[in-house]
Amino acid sequence: MDDIVLGPTHYGKAEVRVVHVAKNSDEHSVRDLNVSISLSGDQAETHLSGDNAKVLTTDAQRNAVYALAADHGISSPESFAGLLAKHFLATCPFISHARVAVDEYAWARIPGATSRHSFLRLGQETRTTLVHADVDGTESVISGLKDLVVLNSTGSEFHGFYQDPYTTLPETTDRVLATAVDARWLHETPAEDWDESYARARSALLTAFADTYSFSLQQTLYAMGEHLLRTDPQLAEVRLALPNRHHFAFDLTPFGKKNDNEVFYAADRPYGLIEGTVRRSAAAPASDRAWD
Amino acid sequence: MDDIVLGPTHYGKAEVRVVHVAKNSDEHSVRDLNVSISLSGDQAETHLSGDNAKVLTTDAQRNAVYALAADHGISSPESFAGLLAKHFLATCPFISHARVAVDEYAWARIPGATSRHSFLRLGQETRTTLVHADVDGTESVISGLKDLVVLNSTGSEFHGFYQDPYTTLPETTDRVLATAVDARWLHETPAEDWDESYARARSALLTAFADTYSFSLQQTLYAMGEHLLRTDPQLAEVRLALPNRHHFAFDLTPFGKKNDNEVFYAADRPYGLIEGTVRRSAAAPASDRAWD
Amino acid sequence: MDDIVLGPTHYGKAEVRVVHVAKNSDEHSVRDLNVSISLSGDQAETHLSGDNAKVLTTDAQRNAVYALAADHGISSPESFAGLLAKHFLATCPFISHARVAVDEYAWARIPGATSRHSFLRLGQETRTTLVHADVDGTESVISGLKDLVVLNSTGSEFHGFYQDPYTTLPETTDRVLATAVDARWLHETPAEDWDESYARARSALLTAFADTYSFSLQQTLYAMGEHLLRTDPQLAEVRLALPNRHHFAFDLTPFGKKNDNEVFYAADRPYGLIEGTVRRSAAAPASDRAWD
Amino acid sequence: MDDIVLGPTHYGKAEVRVVHVAKNSDEHSVRDLNVSISLSGDQAETHLSGDNAKVLTTDAQRNAVYALAADHGISSPESFAGLLAKHFLATCPFISHARVAVDEYAWARIPGATSRHSFLRLGQETRTTLVHADVDGTESVISGLKDLVVLNSTGSEFHGFYQDPYTTLPETTDRVLATAVDARWLHETPAEDWDESYARARSALLTAFADTYSFSLQQTLYAMGEHLLRTDPQLAEVRLALPNRHHFAFDLTPFGKKNDNEVFYAADRPYGLIEGTVRRSAAAPASDRAWD
Repeated sequence: MDDIVLGPTHYGKAEVRVVHVAKNSDEHSVRDLNVSISLSGDQAETHLSGDNAKVLTTDAQRNAVYALAADHGISSPESFAGLLAKHFLATCPFISHARVAVDEYAWARIPGATSRHSFLRLGQETRTTLVHADVDGTESVISGLKDLVVLNSTGSEFHGFYQDPYTTLPETTDRVLATAVDARWLHETPAEDWDESYARARSALLTAFADTYSFSLQQTLYAMGEHLLRTDPQLAEVRLALPNRHHFAFDLTPFGKKNDNEVFYAADRPYGLIEGTVRRSAAAPASDRAWD
Repeated sequence: MDDIVLGPTHYGKAEVRVVHVAKNSDEHSVRDLNVSISLSGDQAETHLSGDNAKVLTTDAQRNAVYALAADHGISSPESFAGLLAKHFLATCPFISHARVAVDEYAWARIPGATSRHSFLRLGQETRTTLVHADVDGTESVISGLKDLVVLNSTGSEFHGFYQDPYTTLPETTDRVLATAVDARWLHETPAEDWDESYARARSALLTAFADTYSFSLQQTLYAMGEHLLRTDPQLAEVRLALPNRHHFAFDLTPFGKKNDNEVFYAADRPYGLIEGTVRRSAAAPASDRAWD
Repeated sequence: MDDIVLGPTHYGKAEVRVVHVAKNSDEHSVRDLNVSISLSGDQAETHLSGDNAKVLTTDAQRNAVYALAADHGISSPESFAGLLAKHFLATCPFISHARVAVDEYAWARIPGATSRHSFLRLGQETRTTLVHADVDGTESVISGLKDLVVLNSTGSEFHGFYQDPYTTLPETTDRVLATAVDARWLHETPAEDWDESYARARSALLTAFADTYSFSLQQTLYAMGEHLLRTDPQLAEVRLALPNRHHFAFDLTPFGKKNDNEVFYAADRPYGLIEGTVRRSAAAPASDRAWD
Repeated sequence: MDDIVLGPTHYGKAEVRVVHVAKNSDEHSVRDLNVSISLSGDQAETHLSGDNAKVLTTDAQRNAVYALAADHGISSPESFAGLLAKHFLATCPFISHARVAVDEYAWARIPGATSRHSFLRLGQETRTTLVHADVDGTESVISGLKDLVVLNSTGSEFHGFYQDPYTTLPETTDRVLATAVDARWLHETPAEDWDESYARARSALLTAFADTYSFSLQQTLYAMGEHLLRTDPQLAEVRLALPNRHHFAFDLTPFGKKNDNEVFYAADRPYGLIEGTVRRSAAAPASDRAWD
């Protein structure tokens, strides 16, 4: 008989917004996170019969975020995500796997203020973390960033591409190259200082984007990944998604003007999207699950 | 030596907005799609050296969307996505895999108008499609919907859950249950009429949500998946993601009033998120890639 | 001396999300509102010295929304907004003016369900209301809608326009005309049934859009406003903002194809924006404040 | 007879995304604007009869943005908006009033890069400008910013407020005060250097927020406005809208923990919204239209 069965499930509290203020002497510091928890394990009963004995409420999961922040502070998104993941495995015998994803928003002190407790949200990229932890002790940590918007106003060409019947794009030896970097990197071993590790990675991505003379966004993607891995030997793999934020030179010829690549129309949609992985060949291949 | 290598890549044009008007006699009809293409294959050169001879520009991919819509019309998102995927495999010898994702926005005729060419965007759920096609002829088709917002104002209980030290949620025998349904289902065999198949699936999800007396959102999830598979024997598997759109009964006791579950605060964040799979045990397991 | 002074101020709680379930016998009904309150009056002290004796907390304003919903239910956004506005004037001697804005999201019963307590969010336009009330008893009520997306696939021309040196747009005798209607109308006298009044207005706007043969979106705007005022003699004025949701016929000539106005690219930005007022000449002119 | 007439109208191209790269020697610089144009004048015919002889197409308006950027560059959003406004008045005899609104997104050089043509979008506040120009030569210029998110982790009290029956908020002598500053200021005379003027205003707002010990957000609003006017004698008036981005100390007492104002829940909705004007009493009152 053709039976219907329950497949894999997971559940948890998403988007828990926790802000922690560390109050050391007169100088405060702030960490601002958006935490999403996802647990899995022996969960069939609540699906099949509505028996909730093995359901840790998502409300309790949210409470744990705030309680652990109070007990331990937030030294980095990676360490806090790991702390949370292990907490759920330790306290819920029916949970065998925890996934904790964190977005962090950066704040800086307000320049020029005498106050040491006043902050300005930077508003650039969002720092991301994804931790997977199993009840058997296996753990993976991925760090990353998203929405880091960068632009090269020259130093980018695009030509020699395949010509199919629908190819109309003119070749160019000088174009604007802009993207919103979405990058994630897998740590082979834990960083000693997660914040320093992040700063180094971010800087590597930025300088590789800036200083690569580009013949395609694909080439820039590989250069960014390679430079990141060369910069930090503890990283095993980096995955990049680079939307091509097209800046089209606006056609001024109908008005008898020439556009020497100075005036651009920044388009919204559609956009090219280049995705790729760069990895260390000697690294043990990570499970795909680590990235999901 | 610890070498750095290129891993999997894919690229394509994302969010191509195509609207097709079929003009039959005096009565027009409209299909409104957002198409995202992602191709993979022999792409190492553009990444490593910037040689673009095997790059079909994303601009040409966009052009193909409009050209194929002109040649064939759009009879359904599934058939159009399949047409596009096979087109890229057929015309680009260096492409071995095509992934085409489509969002469709629904329009209806304007009620009360005499015009037969006037439409109102419905604004409810977005219909989704994901087609994967390989150069060897393998093809998978997933249909789905997202942002279908539903609510039961009673008929939902939640109690008997696990009590850890952070559990403070009161048990309840009457709550509002609301969610924004995100569902996707894998076709074991192609539908004869994709629109009819979609309408049947949507209806199955809606009635299962409405008519299941619920002891947990997990239970409702399974009931929706099971009902969908029972309704359409051509479906192999359904994956559901149900955010719990919390409606909290507002506490009126400080003002000496009782709230008989009539006045609710609709919260934004955080929210519970229940995700699960329901499948036919006899079905051949699909590759994970079909769903990505 | 050049002194610096406090000018006009107002304050209040914004975006209070209240959902009211009316439970009559076996059949429930739902109203789902987003309420924003703004109060003004004798407020100088809190600005100048931080003395809050004349500050009704925005927290208390939020509480009032839920308490009044519990006491009176929500028969319409207009009546509920009026109730709230008068409540604040009655209870706070230092408040001389209340402004209450309401967005309402529409729900319908789930089709095909046996349950009488199951609902589907329609997702089309948002119904809007803006009530201003003064302590002297003056009150104005504006009803409206936004994000009602409509499209005529023919029946629209655009030509004969002014030619300046930057004019390159070709003239056309057949184009798609699409917009997201944002309309607001001022009631000269209160409606007897606000829901019926709304339904009539919405229908008038829709049919005028559909059945006006258009030579410019400006012409369609006036036709919609005029038809609305002719339909309901209690309305004094209507203000419309119509973004031109451009649908450009995609140029297929590079591929040797003709596009008989069947395949369109739906553009995001930029867009034309047409705004205008249609009013009854005999109506007393409303203060501009009523619309803000 | 009760006649229906056309009231005020305006129209134009909204959200024209123009990026200008100034290429001086080896060092490029970038200005990134979103321009919205709105024109009014003798426009009755297109509304009433569809005669478009006095319609400058919004397409031509868009073209003018790019053409003027090519001819003149973009030295500041204020000067570019003024240039555009006067351009439309000069070239269209039927246009008597032009309104140009500009949002500017800030970019900085990528730190650590050797390239002098590589930029990072800052992502903080958006700089805004609003210029109104009449055919008689009258012109007003408003500068501003929005989405500047700031937070004081202490130095804020809130107590002594009015107690109505719905007041339940506890009084506090230590709370987080956070907001997303939306500020606009009217120039009585044009600035000599608009960028320097903006930098000075932004800095004044930031330091006043940081260094004001606050008994209410209302008090902080006035302090910010007053400090801005004291800093720049060329400004006549400032209008501020400050949403109270509530950070609630999370209640840890159910878990036997104390929260010494270190762990906060950052709430989304609802939020208090404080709006007010601070002005120079000797300044000629600006028309309300200047601000719309």
